[in-house]
Amino acid sequence: MKSWLEISSKSDFSIHNLPFGIFRHKKSIPHAGVAIGDYVIDLSVLFDQGSLKKEGIKKNVFEADALNDFISLGKDTGRKVRNRLIDLFGSDNSELRDNIDLKEKTLHKLKDVTMLLPVKPGNYTDFYSSLEHATNVGSMFRDPENPLLPNWKWLPVGYHGRASSIVVSGTPIQRPKGQIKLSENEPPVYAPTMALDFELEMAFITTNGKPLGQTILIEEAEEYIWGMVLFNDWSARDIQKWEYQPLGPFLGKSFASSVSPWVVFMDALEPFRVDGPGQNPPPLPYLRSAGMNNYDINLEVYLQPKGGKAVKICDTNFKYMYWNICQQLAHQSSNGCNIMAGDIYASGTISGPTSDSYGSMLELTWNGTMPFILPDGLERKFIDDGDTVIIKGYAGKNGIKISFGEVETTVLPAIL
Amino acid sequence: MKSWLEISSKSDFSIHNLPFGIFRHKKSIPHAGVAIGDYVIDLSVLFDQGSLKKEGIKKNVFEADALNDFISLGKDTGRKVRNRLIDLFGSDNSELRDNIDLKEKTLHKLKDVTMLLPVKPGNYTDFYSSLEHATNVGSMFRDPENPLLPNWKWLPVGYHGRASSIVVSGTPIQRPKGQIKLSENEPPVYAPTMALDFELEMAFITTNGKPLGQTILIEEAEEYIWGMVLFNDWSARDIQKWEYQPLGPFLGKSFASSVSPWVVFMDALEPFRVDGPGQNPPPLPYLRSAGMNNYDINLEVYLQPKGGKAVKICDTNFKYMYWNICQQLAHQSSNGCNIMAGDIYASGTISGPTSDSYGSMLELTWNGTMPFILPDGLERKFIDDGDTVIIKGYAGKNGIKISFGEVETTVLPAIL
Repeated sequence: MKSWLEISSKSDFSIHNLPFGIFRHKKSIPHAGVAIGDYVIDLSVLFDQGSLKKEGIKKNVFEADALNDFISLGKDTGRKVRNRLIDLFGSDNSELRDNIDLKEKTLHKLKDVTMLLPVKPGNYTDFYSSLEHATNVGSMFRDPENPLLPNWKWLPVGYHGRASSIVVSGTPIQRPKGQIKLSENEPPVYAPTMALDFELEMAFITTNGKPLGQTILIEEAEEYIWGMVLFNDWSARDIQKWEYQPLGPFLGKSFASSVSPWVVFMDALEPFRVDGPGQNPPPLPYLRSAGMNNYDINLEVYLQPKGGKAVKICDTNFKYMYWNICQQLAHQSSNGCNIMAGDIYASGTISGPTSDSYGSMLELTWNGTMPFILPDGLERKFIDDGDTVIIKGYAGKNGIKISFGEVETTVLPAIL
Repeated sequence: MKSWLEISSKSDFSIHNLPFGIFRHKKSIPHAGVAIGDYVIDLSVLFDQGSLKKEGIKKNVFEADALNDFISLGKDTGRKVRNRLIDLFGSDNSELRDNIDLKEKTLHKLKDVTMLLPVKPGNYTDFYSSLEHATNVGSMFRDPENPLLPNWKWLPVGYHGRASSIVVSGTPIQRPKGQIKLSENEPPVYAPTMALDFELEMAFITTNGKPLGQTILIEEAEEYIWGMVLFNDWSARDIQKWEYQPLGPFLGKSFASSVSPWVVFMDALEPFRVDGPGQNPPPLPYLRSAGMNNYDINLEVYLQPKGGKAVKICDTNFKYMYWNICQQLAHQSSNGCNIMAGDIYASGTISGPTSDSYGSMLELTWNGTMPFILPDGLERKFIDDGDTVIIKGYAGKNGIKISFGEVETTVLPAIL
C-alpha cells in the first residue's frame, strides 16, 4: 500500500497505521484526526466537506474533544472510516490529491497541532497480567519459592483505577505526597513519595458493550475492543505499600496515569498476531480463547535526567502477556458489568523473562537494592524530580511498521 | 419555615429539605428538579420562565439527564438556587402561588415522574470507614483478638469502584456470576454467586476540585462536598473472597451499586451535625478536622421476599462513622488526585455497636452461620432471588425532618 502523500519510511504513521486521536490546531477547537506521515487528517473537515458520506455517520462526531462519540458508533464504523482513508490517500486516488483547497483544509502538519487526551474514560481498569511481573513482585515481597497467589493463574487479577487523573503524553506530573510508614515502630508520616515508579503498560479501549447484567463471551470480545495505546501507570511504591491492605492500590496510583495520544485501531495490528504463552492450568471455559490473541509489539522505556540524554532502560514485548486482551475483557464482563465506549483497560506492567526486560524501576533495581548508574554517572533507584520517562512501542514485519508513538512524562517536584 | 404549598407533616420533602434530582415527566426529556411535598419543581421550566434570574446561571443546565453541569457551577450556586426556592415557596411569597399557568408548568406530581440516576459519576470511590464494620469483618476472616490491620486507624482505607454500573433506586439487578472457590482442594467454578449481600452506605457527591497535582486541605473539604445520597454497595462475598488478593475488590462489587434518586444539599443537614467518635491515635495533621463533622442520620434496611412483607433487618445511624466525610475527601485528594463534579464517594458499610445495627447480611448472619428467620418462616443467610432490599434514611429534630427517601432494589435470577 502506497500513498500519494510523501511519507518517510521512518515515519511512525504509514498508510498501514492510521491511528485516531484528538488534536487542537493552533487556537481552534479540538477535532478528531488521524495521523499520516508528518500530518494529521482533520476528520471534522472531511465530514463537513462530504468526503465521509458513505460511512453511515449521521452527525459530526469529529468536532469533539474526545473520541468517545465516534467510538460509540461501533467498531464497524471505525473500520469504514479507516478503510475510506486508506482509499482516499492511496496512490491511485486523485479525489483529495488534486483538490488543493480541500487538501489544505484537511491536512495539518503534526508540528502545528497539540495532541489532547484521546478519550474521556468512564471507567479505567488496570490488570496484572504479566507472569514475569507478578512473579518478580511476589518474589520480592512474599515468597520467592511461591511467588504467585493461588488465584493468579485462574483469573486475570485486576482492580478499578482512577479515571479522572489519566493525562496525555507531554503533560508533566507532580511528585505525589502521601502516608508513608518509614519504620515498623514509628507512626507513619505524610510526605512526598521516596519511591516514585513508572509501569510500562499497554491498554485497550472499548466500544459500547451490552446492557448491565449481560456478559460478553470470550468469542465476542474482539467485537468490543476498538484500539490500543501505550500506558504508564505511575506508582508511588511507599504510599502503596502502607495503604493497600485489604482493599488494594488507591492513592499510590491515582495521582496520575499517562497515555499516548494516538489510538491504533485493532485492524492495523492484524499482521502482528502471535500465540501467547501456554496456560496451565487450562482456564475455565468462560476464559478459554481460540486463535492467536497476543501481539508482537516491541516496547521500550527511556529515562532522561534533567539536562541529560535519554537512556534506554527497558526492552520488552507485549507478546509475553500471560492473559490476553480477550480474556481480560471476558473476565471484566463475566459478572454482568457494563462496558462503555472510551473505557480504558490497561494490561498491568509488562515484564519479559530477562532482567533488562522488566517494566518498572521496582523490578529493574530490585526494589532499590541494585540501583543503576546512568552514563553520566547519576544513580537511580526510582524516578527523581526532573526526570522524563518515555515509553515507545511499535510492531514491525515485512516492511510494515505500526507505531504507537510514545508517552512521555516529566516529573516535577511535589508542591509543598 | 412554612410553604403555601400543602405539605403533609409526614412528607419526606418539607421546605427544609429541597433535594435535587433528575426526573422524566411522562414521555418528555429529562430535567433537573427539586422535591417538595408530593411534587417535583421543574428547574428547567423555572429557568426558562425567568424565575432563576439572579442566581448567576448563564445557560439552562437543568435541561439535562444528570446534575453534573449544575453541580459544576459550584456549591455557592447550588445554595443560591435552593435559597431562591425556599423564598419562592415560602408562605409569604405570592409570585408563583398566584401564577396559575406557571405553577402548573413548574410542578409535576411525584407519582407522574420517573426518577433517573442523579449524576453521571466520573469517579466512584468506596471507603471502609466504620470501625464496627471493619472490626466485624476482621474478626470473622482474620483475628478476633486483633481485627484491624495496622493502617486502619491511620487513614480512611478506600478503593476505586466501578462508575458505570451504578444504577438508581427501582432498577432491578441480576444476580452476578463469577469465579468461586468452593473448597480448598478443588479448582474454582464459574457460577452465580451464592453469597449476594447488600451494604448499607451513604455517599457524598462533590463539585469540581482543584487541578491535578493540588490537594484539598481538610479545612477546605466542605467547600467541595455538595450533597449526599443513600447507597447500596452490592457485594458477592464468594466472588470477592477468591479474587481480592492482592489488588482488592473487583468483580465481587462491580456488577451493580444502587443509589437513591434525591441528592440532599449539605445545607439541609446543618441542624444534624454531631461530634464523631474519638480518634486514637490522633490523625496526622492533614487529616485533623475541627468542629462537628459527623451527622445524626437514622438508617434502616428492610428485606422484602417476593410476595411477602418488608421486614426491618437493620437499624443504625450515620453518626457512628469513625472517619468523617471531610477526612475522606482530604485523604482522597492528599496525593494531588483531582476531584470532579458528580463524583460519588461512598462511606463503606455503616454498622453500629449492636448486632441489630450491622449494615450487611455478612455481619447480621455472621457469614451465614446465624441465619435469620423472617416472620413468614423463610430463612435467610444472604439475599435470595426475588428479594427486594430497601434502605431508608432520615434526620429529624425539633419538628424538622430531612429525608433521603429510599433506595430500593429487587434481585433477579442470574442470566444463564
